[in-house]
Amino acid sequence: MTIIGVDPGFSVTGYSIIKKKDRSILLLDYGYLSLPTKKHLSERVGIFYTSIREKIIRHNAECLTLETSFLGKNAQNFLKLGYLRGILYLLADQHNLSLSEFAPREIKQAVTGYGGASKDQVARVIMQLFPRMPVPKKQDVTDAIAISLCGLWRTPIVKRVN
Amino acid sequence: MTIIGVDPGFSVTGYSIIKKKDRSILLLDYGYLSLPTKKHLSERVGIFYTSIREKIIRHNAECLTLETSFLGKNAQNFLKLGYLRGILYLLADQHNLSLSEFAPREIKQAVTGYGGASKDQVARVIMQLFPRMPVPKKQDVTDAIAISLCGLWRTPIVKRVN
Repeated sequence: MTIIGVDPGFSVTGYSIIKKKDRSILLLDYGYLSLPTKKHLSERVGIFYTSIREKIIRHNAECLTLETSFLGKNAQNFLKLGYLRGILYLLADQHNLSLSEFAPREIKQAVTGYGGASKDQVARVIMQLFPRMPVPKKQDVTDAIAISLCGLWRTPIVKRVN
Repeated sequence: MTIIGVDPGFSVTGYSIIKKKDRSILLLDYGYLSLPTKKHLSERVGIFYTSIREKIIRHNAECLTLETSFLGKNAQNFLKLGYLRGILYLLADQHNLSLSEFAPREIKQAVTGYGGASKDQVARVIMQLFPRMPVPKKQDVTDAIAISLCGLWRTPIVKRVN
């Protein structure tokens, strides 16, 4: 099972692609995407679509995992986050990915054993799980890895064949 | 200039395609789209993308006009409206459409001359402008026509050649 976890945002989008192989978890790809602030919003949305699409195709992802969003201080930013989430939903439909969403607490619980864990604590556990990975520049990356791991551990296995 | 106006929504999306030809305005297409409530959200997003894309291609639309959204009572519905808006932004990028957004007051002002006009008043003006059009079943349709008209009247003309 190959899972892509995405933590979308217009300034920074973290992504992670993991694969379960026998008893181990392979970290196939991870990183972040910064959308050029000077371009029109529609162009940024287009770049986001193309970039994530390319990751899905290259790694043959089967599942997409996201974190549930909650309204913060800025309603317009929340709406714009919806634009990127809409693109991810479209990609799930176009590439036949099963889609799962988890609340932030569930993700922290799955990864650290504690739902109230800080982002630092999440990052530390991720670094322990993948000790050969260099420390990512942005915490959005460890967040995205946590999201994909939660997707792997918490999604009921549908296909047992293959 | 061919303009598509869209009033997106998961239950009903109104759309309208108008074209300015000499001094008259042609109403090329209008109607509404209801996304099947039983399908998964990602499938509904996919159907929305395919349906609007088909309208853009068929009528060779050059501009997309939208109404600005404001947070209502339900934050999760507002986020989901963002999904559909994100798809429209993506389509604008993919089909090279110029995109303009107007506040509800600006649209009502442009169409009826009064920013505080009711939806009924907007519908009545639309019916006067296009007297041969049968009364639409949903007010989302007259809303979408109003949005496209506002786009036509308020967007600065960029291309003077052709």
